[in-house]
Amino acid sequence: MEQGVSNPGVISLAAGLVDQDSLPVDEVAQACARLMAHPALARELLQYGATPGYAPLRDLLARRLAEMDGLAPGENDLCGDRVLIGAGSQQLLYLVGEVLLDPGDVVLADAPTYFVYMGALESMDARIVPVDADDDGLVPESLEVRLDEIQRRGELDRVKFIYVVSYFNNPTGMTLSADRRKQVVEIAKRWSRASRIHVVEDAAYRELSYFGDPPPSMLRFDPDASTVLYAGTFSKPFAPGVRTGYLVAPRDLVGALVRQKGHHDFGSANLTQGLVLEVLESGAYDRHLARLRTIYGEKLRLTLNTLQDALSPLDPQVEWTRPTGGLYVWVRTPAGVSTGMDGPFFRDCLDEGVLYVPGEFCYPPGVEGAPTNFLRLSFGLADARRCREGLNRFCRVLARCAGAS
Amino acid sequence: MEQGVSNPGVISLAAGLVDQDSLPVDEVAQACARLMAHPALARELLQYGATPGYAPLRDLLARRLAEMDGLAPGENDLCGDRVLIGAGSQQLLYLVGEVLLDPGDVVLADAPTYFVYMGALESMDARIVPVDADDDGLVPESLEVRLDEIQRRGELDRVKFIYVVSYFNNPTGMTLSADRRKQVVEIAKRWSRASRIHVVEDAAYRELSYFGDPPPSMLRFDPDASTVLYAGTFSKPFAPGVRTGYLVAPRDLVGALVRQKGHHDFGSANLTQGLVLEVLESGAYDRHLARLRTIYGEKLRLTLNTLQDALSPLDPQVEWTRPTGGLYVWVRTPAGVSTGMDGPFFRDCLDEGVLYVPGEFCYPPGVEGAPTNFLRLSFGLADARRCREGLNRFCRVLARCAGAS
Repeated sequence: MEQGVSNPGVISLAAGLVDQDSLPVDEVAQACARLMAHPALARELLQYGATPGYAPLRDLLARRLAEMDGLAPGENDLCGDRVLIGAGSQQLLYLVGEVLLDPGDVVLADAPTYFVYMGALESMDARIVPVDADDDGLVPESLEVRLDEIQRRGELDRVKFIYVVSYFNNPTGMTLSADRRKQVVEIAKRWSRASRIHVVEDAAYRELSYFGDPPPSMLRFDPDASTVLYAGTFSKPFAPGVRTGYLVAPRDLVGALVRQKGHHDFGSANLTQGLVLEVLESGAYDRHLARLRTIYGEKLRLTLNTLQDALSPLDPQVEWTRPTGGLYVWVRTPAGVSTGMDGPFFRDCLDEGVLYVPGEFCYPPGVEGAPTNFLRLSFGLADARRCREGLNRFCRVLARCAGAS
Repeated sequence: MEQGVSNPGVISLAAGLVDQDSLPVDEVAQACARLMAHPALARELLQYGATPGYAPLRDLLARRLAEMDGLAPGENDLCGDRVLIGAGSQQLLYLVGEVLLDPGDVVLADAPTYFVYMGALESMDARIVPVDADDDGLVPESLEVRLDEIQRRGELDRVKFIYVVSYFNNPTGMTLSADRRKQVVEIAKRWSRASRIHVVEDAAYRELSYFGDPPPSMLRFDPDASTVLYAGTFSKPFAPGVRTGYLVAPRDLVGALVRQKGHHDFGSANLTQGLVLEVLESGAYDRHLARLRTIYGEKLRLTLNTLQDALSPLDPQVEWTRPTGGLYVWVRTPAGVSTGMDGPFFRDCLDEGVLYVPGEFCYPPGVEGAPTNFLRLSFGLADARRCREGLNRFCRVLARCAGAS
């Protein structure tokens, strides 16, 4: 993989990086200049901040989220003091694991799912139980079947949360439907006994929607604000380099999360938090996001059209998802074509000059019967020209393999 | 404590914050403008970075450290690939704990010591064993006595590292002497059996030296680069708001530390790392540091003179340290005057309008016989005028109490 990444002749459709050319250089330059032009504010941002995050940013995020979710200000207790800021949503998801899990505890997750977080959970000795997902995201009936199995084993009290990448999932690109959001929250509440089963909603890709608005978050379906933890980020819709994410947590978990954040780093960089607040308040963020949506929307259309043109003759041997946002398309290769890094298909793609993420990485470790003929393509990093070229290379190899299999 | 902090009439000599008025507003504004003026570089800094940190910054830090320690480039294996960047040195110290410790493992630490890290270690169920310290820092003989006691209990293999705030210690202000640095490293090597005993050197205050140069770091005395982990930060000598620290680790620990950092946040903000590199390379950092040394040096002199004038009549009932750097002075009150937050002395100080950190916070939790008549004063945050006024208030209360006791 490293060999492919460092070879400039290889086009990476593997990396989860964002579009390089559209990174907000002018927006950051202007925001930083504006902030530093006010000495008292500038000094506040260069000093230590508060462990949970910069209060004005926490408040603004609560208001923006409420608006996105169609909630009145403060409805469902969506307030700034339930918002924590961290080093990307990753750090906050890690803290959630540390606070909610003891070794051996169970996390239910839609499969396939975000592999980096699975690795983090595994490092905490969590047991990850996969739940089926389809084009509308996690399947509530499958969730109940899993919970029932766990209860029969007498281990229901070990289930601590349900993890869902709820918008334009990494790796499938699929979004959890509005109906199912409500069902998932209700299932979590209904199956909570001595200890609560939380829902951890990873909304990293929410704002990368290119064709219509996605459904409200699960916070909307949690009127007593007891169940849902919502993780968002500025990495995908603005700039990974500011490394700023946020979490909305039930009030009774905030203290423990902040304490743990204090142990880690007693608060993320005040400067980048001030910068994010500035681009939000000035409107630069929303303008940048509108531009991003156009750019990614075109790359997504190009990706789906290229796959359609090249691979439709292989239907139904080959299938792929049709997301309306995010950075990924999930491809099923013919049953005989294994996508693993040790196999000939991966090698052939590398020889042709294109990289993808093997699907096996996207299933929780140790899952039996995880399929070996899936892969993730990302149209995030490369520009349209390289995206098209990379996809053409990929489709050529796939057509060859499918013909031979 | 919170009540005191939020009351503007109260002068905080408690906070570990840095001097507010000298924060490098212009330096940050200029560095950010320069970086954003180069679109390719700017985009690199706004994209995801590498988990261990921004490579040019890692390399430069290795070179600067070698120079500070009187080492030739690469001597003692002091190279950029042994340097990790994190969210302040705190995050890196936390990672060190996670990687080196199992629950119940032993950390030896000079007492009193940095209480935030003791809290983090406690959260990992480490056992902290205090080692005596005097005006030359941690006492090597006391270290050997502790190790011998632990060996007799058959627990030597549970000792994982020795933690030392080696420059202008928080809270005492004292620096570990050059001779003792060598001895501490040798003791760690000599007592290492099946598992290595590392030395974790917390050098957060190293560059805040106001009267002469402090000794080289313990990296200098670790020729095979097997034993010492060195943690530094840009929070104290530049700006806490950039939240950038660094760690030099033995080569055989780098992989595990980077893996754990990957679980936490897969890398700190590229943008602030680029900013730190820019101020280092442009010379802005060194110029700022020279200015800081003057400002803090004057506040330290003022602090020691004020204490001398007001408290020398109380000698030897009252004693205090005479640091030559850092942000703290450590005060011993008369034996009958307890400094805890529940006691009348703390309350009297608050009534007079001044806050300090009770010394009991600075001893590892659960240490028997930790003295109750010490406290930490910080001249970091307040400007000279408020510093003097705060100290006068403090000395008035102390003189009253000492007279009454």
